[in-house]
Amino acid sequence: MALMEGRVEPPVYLGPDELARLYSVEDFESLARERMADAGYRYVAGWAGTGETVRMNREAFGRWVLRPRALVDVSTIDPSTTVLGQPVSLPVLFAPSALHRLAHPDGELATAAASVAADTVMILSTSASATIEEVAAVARDPWFQLYWLTDRELTRDLVQRATAAGFRALCLTVDAPVGGWREGELRYPVPLDATCRAANLPDVVEVETRLTWSSLDWLRSISPLPLVLKGIMTAQDARLAVDHGAAAIVVSNHGGRQLDWAQASLDALPEIVDAVGGQLEILTDGGVRRGTDVLKALALGARAVLIGRPVFWGLATGGAAGLGAMVELIRGELVSAMALTGATTIADVGRQLVSPRF
Amino acid sequence: MALMEGRVEPPVYLGPDELARLYSVEDFESLARERMADAGYRYVAGWAGTGETVRMNREAFGRWVLRPRALVDVSTIDPSTTVLGQPVSLPVLFAPSALHRLAHPDGELATAAASVAADTVMILSTSASATIEEVAAVARDPWFQLYWLTDRELTRDLVQRATAAGFRALCLTVDAPVGGWREGELRYPVPLDATCRAANLPDVVEVETRLTWSSLDWLRSISPLPLVLKGIMTAQDARLAVDHGAAAIVVSNHGGRQLDWAQASLDALPEIVDAVGGQLEILTDGGVRRGTDVLKALALGARAVLIGRPVFWGLATGGAAGLGAMVELIRGELVSAMALTGATTIADVGRQLVSPRF
Amino acid sequence: MALMEGRVEPPVYLGPDELARLYSVEDFESLARERMADAGYRYVAGWAGTGETVRMNREAFGRWVLRPRALVDVSTIDPSTTVLGQPVSLPVLFAPSALHRLAHPDGELATAAASVAADTVMILSTSASATIEEVAAVARDPWFQLYWLTDRELTRDLVQRATAAGFRALCLTVDAPVGGWREGELRYPVPLDATCRAANLPDVVEVETRLTWSSLDWLRSISPLPLVLKGIMTAQDARLAVDHGAAAIVVSNHGGRQLDWAQASLDALPEIVDAVGGQLEILTDGGVRRGTDVLKALALGARAVLIGRPVFWGLATGGAAGLGAMVELIRGELVSAMALTGATTIADVGRQLVSPRF
Amino acid sequence: MALMEGRVEPPVYLGPDELARLYSVEDFESLARERMADAGYRYVAGWAGTGETVRMNREAFGRWVLRPRALVDVSTIDPSTTVLGQPVSLPVLFAPSALHRLAHPDGELATAAASVAADTVMILSTSASATIEEVAAVARDPWFQLYWLTDRELTRDLVQRATAAGFRALCLTVDAPVGGWREGELRYPVPLDATCRAANLPDVVEVETRLTWSSLDWLRSISPLPLVLKGIMTAQDARLAVDHGAAAIVVSNHGGRQLDWAQASLDALPEIVDAVGGQLEILTDGGVRRGTDVLKALALGARAVLIGRPVFWGLATGGAAGLGAMVELIRGELVSAMALTGATTIADVGRQLVSPRF
Repeated sequence: MALMEGRVEPPVYLGPDELARLYSVEDFESLARERMADAGYRYVAGWAGTGETVRMNREAFGRWVLRPRALVDVSTIDPSTTVLGQPVSLPVLFAPSALHRLAHPDGELATAAASVAADTVMILSTSASATIEEVAAVARDPWFQLYWLTDRELTRDLVQRATAAGFRALCLTVDAPVGGWREGELRYPVPLDATCRAANLPDVVEVETRLTWSSLDWLRSISPLPLVLKGIMTAQDARLAVDHGAAAIVVSNHGGRQLDWAQASLDALPEIVDAVGGQLEILTDGGVRRGTDVLKALALGARAVLIGRPVFWGLATGGAAGLGAMVELIRGELVSAMALTGATTIADVGRQLVSPRF
Repeated sequence: MALMEGRVEPPVYLGPDELARLYSVEDFESLARERMADAGYRYVAGWAGTGETVRMNREAFGRWVLRPRALVDVSTIDPSTTVLGQPVSLPVLFAPSALHRLAHPDGELATAAASVAADTVMILSTSASATIEEVAAVARDPWFQLYWLTDRELTRDLVQRATAAGFRALCLTVDAPVGGWREGELRYPVPLDATCRAANLPDVVEVETRLTWSSLDWLRSISPLPLVLKGIMTAQDARLAVDHGAAAIVVSNHGGRQLDWAQASLDALPEIVDAVGGQLEILTDGGVRRGTDVLKALALGARAVLIGRPVFWGLATGGAAGLGAMVELIRGELVSAMALTGATTIADVGRQLVSPRF
Repeated sequence: MALMEGRVEPPVYLGPDELARLYSVEDFESLARERMADAGYRYVAGWAGTGETVRMNREAFGRWVLRPRALVDVSTIDPSTTVLGQPVSLPVLFAPSALHRLAHPDGELATAAASVAADTVMILSTSASATIEEVAAVARDPWFQLYWLTDRELTRDLVQRATAAGFRALCLTVDAPVGGWREGELRYPVPLDATCRAANLPDVVEVETRLTWSSLDWLRSISPLPLVLKGIMTAQDARLAVDHGAAAIVVSNHGGRQLDWAQASLDALPEIVDAVGGQLEILTDGGVRRGTDVLKALALGARAVLIGRPVFWGLATGGAAGLGAMVELIRGELVSAMALTGATTIADVGRQLVSPRF
Repeated sequence: MALMEGRVEPPVYLGPDELARLYSVEDFESLARERMADAGYRYVAGWAGTGETVRMNREAFGRWVLRPRALVDVSTIDPSTTVLGQPVSLPVLFAPSALHRLAHPDGELATAAASVAADTVMILSTSASATIEEVAAVARDPWFQLYWLTDRELTRDLVQRATAAGFRALCLTVDAPVGGWREGELRYPVPLDATCRAANLPDVVEVETRLTWSSLDWLRSISPLPLVLKGIMTAQDARLAVDHGAAAIVVSNHGGRQLDWAQASLDALPEIVDAVGGQLEILTDGGVRRGTDVLKALALGARAVLIGRPVFWGLATGGAAGLGAMVELIRGELVSAMALTGATTIADVGRQLVSPRF
């Protein structure tokens, strides 16, 4: 793995034996909370308003139970699938998020290395602490998340750099034309310093507030990459995404950082799945912590899920190896849960695997 | 701002920098609890019976979630509206409540000044600690809340003073013909003293218990002001309010101070909105603490909301400036939530913005 | 009030000023817990199995909210009613319960005095610590609760003594043919001693396990008193009570002391009210602590309610005066709640006063 | 009772007087937690993933309430029934579970003795710490639980030893073709040592992952015993069990140790009862702690229930006598609850005894 130059002395990260004694993503979080600088941990944990959407994202998974099946040959279980035609070894992608160097000095390069090891897709944030080109040199077929800025030339430049560097899709964030009422970040501001800052942006930028559905034409005119819209939460907007040629959507409320009291992502998923009728791929994020969460989201119609905050916890614990170990935990839970519900491939996963909790 | 004469030495109130570090109405409450005399804070917090209606008022907002919308031009968001034809810069009014000098030596004059700064309507209580005329000199187009007393001449005098002083509406409280079983006030009685007493009433008054709908005729005969009925909680009474010519109603349970186990105001709102069919304006209060609460109440059919206890917390923290800062927090949350639900004006706010929480 | 002879030195009971500073039945309970011998308090608090029915009895009231009404003339509110034709000043009776001397040396004689002062009905328990004749000398028109014992002659004797002494109804307990699994009493056995024992029974008695509906014929053959069946919890049994000529039933689960996981009394009430169609009077008990609880039970179809454990708390706090003060609290809450829901008499109380809590 | 040779010095177990002061299975658990080696207690308490299925198993019982009935002759209450034609004195069997010597040096031989004393069926686990033949010498008509191993000859040998030793049914576990994500056991591994190990297995075995419904033919070809399938959780699999000639099923999620977020057993029961239509016998386990739990499960259609972890708590407290005392507690609760719901025999127990909790 490429290392960033000039980085500060790293803390001591966990080795393989120690990582093997972490049994859940919650274990990683607990350890990350101890190991990360408090300001960094709290910024990552940030929330809008009351924080209720953050909590609802988790609770929504608890409203579904799994239906075990018996006497199915489960000698091989294959959790691999594809997203936008790209093979991934499991339906778990790395969500775009700012400033991975908050968690580890290798930042997004460690994330990229972990995505290669796990054979899945990394989505690089516009606000990354590594450059587009640095990440492209490590990652395999990553996607690029775009904040559409008021500076149209800067926006064009970001898109064209990503396209040129081999990124495979553009993931436009559509749920943040204005900032949420981010009480988390008001109380615990992002701890920027010389070693951790946005590597692809000038110091001051503004997100464009005037975008509409027809604005997507310009984006398509400057890049051939398929377009993924991140932050769709209603059947109406999902239909509009189909009508405007999006290749995929991410059913997401920005991890509860934008609109406080936004519905939980998982709660919004079924109406969107029904409205889309298979006309584009549906990803989702928000509160995914367990292989059983992944299975529930897929059973309700998602093609794959994204993990956001857990990426930081994995990095903080053991860099690329830590994040990799965390993905293997999720894979282990997922494979076990697939076997015990009688689903030997992702194609077997459907609504019949879940029931509403009484 | 006019100051009341002879007031005691004030505590030190927060300046702008300190106010800017309060991020929610809950922050204001925490600080007010520290700063107010305990007896005053607890009197304001008072409740009927078990206090369950106070809790239900808050919980009711938690039963609704917001539906984010994407790719709407949100470069300008306008939260202004009108109430009874009066323009207000946001749909948040100051509820009538007794004795603002419990929170700040300037009392209702500070409230009036804040209402001017925020460009919204203040509703002055019959039990105010400033006189009708003093408040009229500071406020812009305030409303007057009336307790209809057994002393008919005193009642007439209050109404005619308010009318003469330029108040723009009469807000008759109809949910307190008898006292609630106010356990809060039994345990923490109102701390009256020379600096804080009802300025418009003799020491002993009684509320009239014999009022019926036809009693409103007399009220209309002595004042041309439009009539707002505060404390309507059923579709039946809302229809009666229409039939008897009320200009507006306030769906309210008196902040949980009157009938214990009264339904939450927000829970009563939808049936009333449906019953009224737009034939009068519907305001509501009870538990509003966030811009997202305001948006939910409007989405369910209210024209505007009132805040009650928060007024005291704002005053206690920084007088008129404190209350003003608190209103700006609510405005900030509201504007952000409007943008993220795709509502650029109050006219865009409707039932489609909310879903029942699963 | 008649005092029992030979009683031990009483603790000091509260005077009127102190009682006036108790604002709820919960206040009385807290004080009783401090003042009663621990063994006595805990025996009274006893429960079956997990104690869940005790908790559900209380929770059931929380599933209903009250609907306030406005602009009704509430200058007079009358909570009086009748039970089996007997006038009572409020729809709250004293439930039968064992051994009131656990709470106060005057025991059931204090209870009887309080029932006279409050102008309501006392139901004397077979297991009382005062004799039938002693209570008859103090109470006005009390009822007698019967445990039908295997000793048929003893049972006949109890019934005939009560009839002769002027009791006005027989209240047969039908929910205790065998003991419940009383974990409460297993852990905290009844603290009998020379000053507190069953005054109308020999030391060892057994309840008859073989009773059926036709057994009631014998009971009617030995006494002309109207028959009240206490412990009916289903529509089926309520219909059978009608068919077998009961004058009234008490919808009751024995305060959660008999069948653990029995449905809450209030939850069972509506189906029973519908099944009975007014053919007998329906009382209920279990968890009544507030005037608002009384109003909810009546709104759902009960004619009156019984209070059980609170009787002990009232006695423990101030003897007959304490119990009387507690009844006046409940009356105060009830009258306030009637006024604020627009019900000026008990005849006005109906299903329209309540809504299911959202 | 036969004692195992070479056992370590036992702790002092409770005598009859002490056992009589335990009033619930929860009391047994509390005491077992103090008395068992921590590693053993925690292994027994083990769970999959978040542990939510363990919690849901308990909570499911709380969603049903019991309906009391009055004036039924309850002078005799008979809780006896049959399972696969075998008479049992109450509808509570001992579930198969590994390594009873974790709780008591006599291990499964104590369990067997308790099953004889209680006149019920013990199901011996493949992973028992006593041999098939040792248990057969003590138990009366036990059943044998089978883990079908990849070593086909070993599997055949286990089945044929059990058949030869007089076991009366084969209980094939079908919910564990792969291990669950057993976080409990990852954190608290099974504490094997010389005195506590699987007595019927070599040190390393693997469960067969390739079984399907047609695999059952081979099992039937090597033993005439009736087949019980343990771990059926859906109507579909229950129908398949009927179609493939199972004599009974156990609606079970392996006590929450296999598939995390599997539905509670009791929640799965009604759809299975409806689907099976009486064509095989339905047992269930998971969270049964009370006689009222037993009654609810039977009311919802189970023929009998199994208790798992409680067996360890009984053994740990007093060996065979402790387990026996615990069964008598459950019997006492069951008999009391049958009487108070008017069910004098198990044949009287039906859906009419329960209502959904409001």
